Amino acid sequence: MKKVPVLEIFGPTIQGEGMVIGRKTMFLRTGGCDYRCSWCDSAFTWDGSQKPDILDASDIVEWLEMEGGSFFNHVTISGGNPALHEGLGEVNRLLQEKGIQTAVETQGSFWQEWMTEIDDVTISPKPPSSGMKTNWEHLDMYISRLKDRETKKVSLKVVIFDDTDLSYAADVHERYPEVEMFLQTGNDEISTADDQWLLSHLLNRYEWLVEQVLHSNRLNDVKVLPQLHTLLWGNKQGV
Amino acid sequence: MKKVPVLEIFGPTIQGEGMVIGRKTMFLRTGGCDYRCSWCDSAFTWDGSQKPDILDASDIVEWLEMEGGSFFNHVTISGGNPALHEGLGEVNRLLQEKGIQTAVETQGSFWQEWMTEIDDVTISPKPPSSGMKTNWEHLDMYISRLKDRETKKVSLKVVIFDDTDLSYAADVHERYPEVEMFLQTGNDEISTADDQWLLSHLLNRYEWLVEQVLHSNRLNDVKVLPQLHTLLWGNKQGV
Ligand code: SF4
Ligand code: SF4
Repeated sequence: MKKVPVLEIFGPTIQGEGMVIGRKTMFLRTGGCDYRCSWCDSAFTWDGSQKPDILDASDIVEWLEMEGGSFFNHVTISGGNPALHEGLGEVNRLLQEKGIQTAVETQGSFWQEWMTEIDDVTISPKPPSSGMKTNWEHLDMYISRLKDRETKKVSLKVVIFDDTDLSYAADVHERYPEVEMFLQTGNDEISTADDQWLLSHLLNRYEWLVEQVLHSNRLNDVKVLPQLHTLLWGNKQGV
Repeated sequence: MKKVPVLEIFGPTIQGEGMVIGRKTMFLRTGGCDYRCSWCDSAFTWDGSQKPDILDASDIVEWLEMEGGSFFNHVTISGGNPALHEGLGEVNRLLQEKGIQTAVETQGSFWQEWMTEIDDVTISPKPPSSGMKTNWEHLDMYISRLKDRETKKVSLKVVIFDDTDLSYAADVHERYPEVEMFLQTGNDEISTADDQWLLSHLLNRYEWLVEQVLHSNRLNDVKVLPQLHTLLWGNKQGV
């Protein structure tokens, strides 16, 4: 049985982004990432600043239940890149056996067979501003293996910092027009503790992105969302 | 051919609420409502303060295209109660023939056959704070006629002002557990023009609602959302 490096477990809270925005969920954050995005807002999962606990699937599920009690039926697995960890397949199986739904967010650079069992998969390919390069053939494979599942869903999410990112997002959307797509403003102020200032800054950024999308006919059926948890709680970790 | 009283057409803008939150859409707002909710935020659709244009379906579609150009492929029909108007069936048909998807929001008090053709139906039964009474048998019929459509979707949305509303929402959710459900904070300050104050007030209300839902195990799989357009643009009409 493969163990999983766990950086934090918290919740229940609200999913602040993407395809299940607003849903009550627990978060399970794994350590380690194969990317080094310039603006990574969870660098603590891979830069050595926080140490993961290396845990069995059953211990992870027990921890989730201890934190969440009877107040959740959805778990979001994020990272880092959770797709690095084979052991999450067992975590997913144990959760679904208890009637708990699962979500994963990954950039789509690694494949795991358990990915096809996840209820809500968000693939977030990284735009040029991240400094990372997209492997399109790999992404094609990812999408094609996930898009025709019966009741389980896949979506794309691209974080946008500038015009170049926006045109990258339009390329992604045109390559996979049948996949639900979310655009989200990047948080370029991940260390400020001035919540009031951050709020108006983030809403300005969101309004900018909305305006860009409204004026692009390449992006007619994308969804543009802010990060609700950042609007509510600023840059605090673990909420 | 039945004509439709139209109060405003605007967009493209972002759908700020509910099941297609964040999606680029045009709004078509019809006049008239059979309800008189105490906190109605679109009373101008029925209180005589604004006069509707009485229009044919083809004129409505032309107007939408004039406003939106090639920059939309989704139209949201709201009110008032759009379900009062038989003529919207033809509007919906014309739009879908052009490859445009449609959404409707109604409290579920009136039935129209065209309702089954709408892509995204939001039923928003009104909680006790509205002063209105729910006809449960009628709502049962509504849900049962809409929930098993192939690719088209239905959701429930309840606006929450207080604890009594919240327990009403839990009743609704338990009656229709298979229907995706959204909770939303009511805007109890629909006339202030102080956007800065309104923003922090609305975020406080949203945080209150999030906390209530996190602490209720009757509401584990609802989604709790703010009104994005109000966060961005305050109480301005027509955005
Ligand atoms: S893929 Fe995600 S976790 Fe990894 S470096 Fe990029 S933003 Fe950070
Ligand atoms: S049903 Fe909607 S439009 Fe009608 S009075 Fe109530 S809030 Fe206003």
